[in-house]
Amino acid sequence: MSATSLEGLIQESGNVVEMLRNSKTGMYVYPVVAPEFTNWRDEQRAWRDSAVLFDQSHHMDELIVEGPQAEAFLSYHGINAFSNFSLNRAKHFVPVTPAGHVIGDHIIFREREDKFILVGRAPNSNWLQFCAAYGKWNVRIRHDPRSPSRPDGERVQRTHYRFQIQGPEAPKIFEKMNGGPIPDIKFFHVEPINVGSKKVQALRHGMSGAPGLEIWGPYADKSYIHACIMQAAKDAGVDLVQCGARAYSTNTLESGWIPSPLPGIYTGDGMLADYRQWLGADSYEASGAIGGSFVSDNIEDYYVTPFELGYDFYIGWKKDDFVGKQALQEMKGKASRKKVTFEWNRDDVLKVIASAFEDGTPYKWIDFPQPNYASTSADMIMRDGQMVGMSMFNGYSFNERCVLSLGVVNHDVEVGDVLTLVWGEPETTQKTSTEKHRQAEIKVRVAPTPYASEARENYADSWRTRKAG
Amino acid sequence: MSATSLEGLIQESGNVVEMLRNSKTGMYVYPVVAPEFTNWRDEQRAWRDSAVLFDQSHHMDELIVEGPQAEAFLSYHGINAFSNFSLNRAKHFVPVTPAGHVIGDHIIFREREDKFILVGRAPNSNWLQFCAAYGKWNVRIRHDPRSPSRPDGERVQRTHYRFQIQGPEAPKIFEKMNGGPIPDIKFFHVEPINVGSKKVQALRHGMSGAPGLEIWGPYADKSYIHACIMQAAKDAGVDLVQCGARAYSTNTLESGWIPSPLPGIYTGDGMLADYRQWLGADSYEASGAIGGSFVSDNIEDYYVTPFELGYDFYIGWKKDDFVGKQALQEMKGKASRKKVTFEWNRDDVLKVIASAFEDGTPYKWIDFPQPNYASTSADMIMRDGQMVGMSMFNGYSFNERCVLSLGVVNHDVEVGDVLTLVWGEPETTQKTSTEKHRQAEIKVRVAPTPYASEARENYADSWRTRKAG
Repeated sequence: MSATSLEGLIQESGNVVEMLRNSKTGMYVYPVVAPEFTNWRDEQRAWRDSAVLFDQSHHMDELIVEGPQAEAFLSYHGINAFSNFSLNRAKHFVPVTPAGHVIGDHIIFREREDKFILVGRAPNSNWLQFCAAYGKWNVRIRHDPRSPSRPDGERVQRTHYRFQIQGPEAPKIFEKMNGGPIPDIKFFHVEPINVGSKKVQALRHGMSGAPGLEIWGPYADKSYIHACIMQAAKDAGVDLVQCGARAYSTNTLESGWIPSPLPGIYTGDGMLADYRQWLGADSYEASGAIGGSFVSDNIEDYYVTPFELGYDFYIGWKKDDFVGKQALQEMKGKASRKKVTFEWNRDDVLKVIASAFEDGTPYKWIDFPQPNYASTSADMIMRDGQMVGMSMFNGYSFNERCVLSLGVVNHDVEVGDVLTLVWGEPETTQKTSTEKHRQAEIKVRVAPTPYASEARENYADSWRTRKAG
Repeated sequence: MSATSLEGLIQESGNVVEMLRNSKTGMYVYPVVAPEFTNWRDEQRAWRDSAVLFDQSHHMDELIVEGPQAEAFLSYHGINAFSNFSLNRAKHFVPVTPAGHVIGDHIIFREREDKFILVGRAPNSNWLQFCAAYGKWNVRIRHDPRSPSRPDGERVQRTHYRFQIQGPEAPKIFEKMNGGPIPDIKFFHVEPINVGSKKVQALRHGMSGAPGLEIWGPYADKSYIHACIMQAAKDAGVDLVQCGARAYSTNTLESGWIPSPLPGIYTGDGMLADYRQWLGADSYEASGAIGGSFVSDNIEDYYVTPFELGYDFYIGWKKDDFVGKQALQEMKGKASRKKVTFEWNRDDVLKVIASAFEDGTPYKWIDFPQPNYASTSADMIMRDGQMVGMSMFNGYSFNERCVLSLGVVNHDVEVGDVLTLVWGEPETTQKTSTEKHRQAEIKVRVAPTPYASEARENYADSWRTRKAG
């Protein structure tokens, strides 16, 4: 391979789907943080029953955008309304391509009128850096890429530490940390709180209705802040469980966010063609892997839109213009796929596991609690032999005693429908993250996203926890 | 707790078994090395089918013993014959207590006539440091403890890097590394070989009959040596698979070494009482955890002897004296327990896993591929309601498509016998590494150690791979 850009690699390979399905980049891991602090079952349990501490210092890119045009630049490159973006608010920022396909997403904080901190996967960071140069915007961008997947004993540095505390018992810890009641911060609003002798910014976050805060500051303060958090939990009498790398990514199955859509940048001309020339051959977009049973000749079949992911209510229709506005206007009101949760049938999951105790080629191993084996997953969801959806992020939940996945389905699929997920890949690829295997069919029941207690209660007896009979 | 020594902790707790069963130290992990490089199934497969690279730079203590009395000191504190210990040999060095109980084991290299490098778990390192002071030996000891379990992005340094390459295709790599045929090194002998522009020491090692080499040198050379190894494999056309932390410890299930006997130092007076005063409250011996279904009031029930582990052929009976010689002489010729492999019944394992898909308290999760949840494991092996053995180290083998464990059984247990392993703990402990669970009975068939192809072939059809039904 002699290509130095994504576009060069695509030209060389002739088939970008095949190229990405044969990536040797390995698993997309939650780096640096220990695999387990206690054990992954109790770490999952903690965010439902007591309180959990996520160390989010390492797994995301950070992009600092500042300058006279910072707000105008970001507003033009995301779908979100910016009119209500005051200093004490955060946003779930979603850029799309001119064709309206999702590139990725960021949590975006406004630190000053003209300074923003963006946190998320690489596709957004790369895109915004390109756009700033492409449009000759008067902004200064600093990029702090995620930590290495295998530091191998070498030191790791970030710009900021980032901790999140979640769970029903979390408020007791916040009060101890702050040395008194904390301000009543609204969802996705930011207020300063005290942690030890420091004043830190706190974002009101939350999963499945449980209150939570995300705090951040200079990386050099990380150990001090960590010690203050652990002491506050002890003083509050709360069993605060630190969450390790194995359990971390599964929290999204209960809260419903899909972390890994394929950025819709592999096709399109003009700006996108220039972007693919700009993107290096070692970029996330060029080296990331597509995994799963869904193999299409057309890379666009892996793209998703803001409507499909449920992000359409973010769209700032009143903004004069933004990248993708026209395309989104054309999509508006038309039937699109919708985001759902898939509950995997217990007996079919056990059938897959049982094959690891038989000679011959087994089914694709379902690793616990995180079976994803690529940066982007795409498993076929079938009904009567027709593909009616795509499963995009998988995991086992000890809280739900079930394997769940998130994905999109055709608009005529209903909650409660029983469909079939094809698990495992049809062909042998170069992916290092998967052993040789055969495909299995796994029945899945469609449930709402976020996965609600209502769904759990209504279907538990008849479905997920049904004993083999 | 105010005690500063192991002895102080034992006095405070009043029950050392209870103290160790309630340790909060967490899992005993293979530190620093990435959890997976490819995926743990293929990493296990590699040592059977092609070649595997183990990075053993981090998981073991190293002890450097040198000085005029170095040989006499080590000979006096291990059971091994030393008469045949020339410069180009290594030994599997086993110290025991005055009562003849195993403390631990080391691989010991003789670098000069008066300098030895010892590699192994902490109990041996601690014991030898104490003994040197206790006996006023004229030796100099440097202790390089294993790397931290959770470096959390901080830099890790060791004295030596240590790589091991194993598997049927390994010799092709050695020849490329050495730039020509390598010397015909006998098992556990040491010879220099070339790696790139360096000359390094190579120990002939091996698992399950496959040839292997272990090489080591200054830690600063680690990246260079690693690059040379990977290049040699590429040049040789061999699929050399790097082994991650999740698969690593399971290799011993096929080769038959038990890494984790409880050091027999919690009882005994005289030298041992002084040792327990010397050992810190934060030592491996004081903070390590005992896990498993076997709960005895008597800590000595967890001890093992060299006869039970099959190390009796090492014993240097001709040596004038060594610590434990008299006790071992008294044991000699008497019936003792013996080391075996247990094959876990497939249907019983699947029953345990299935409980993770049911509401209520599940069976103890069997984590794949490494289900151990304590520094020392002790699970009861039952026959007709009587305990007839102890399972001491567990793991799933993708090569054997089976969960295996190593342990000891009474002398009247025969290969082929079907016994019952009690999986999970009878009481709730403070251990952070295990979720709340109930106990399960798992049928196990007794097989030889090392787990031989003969055993696999004879029992496979009728037992392990039998389908449910």
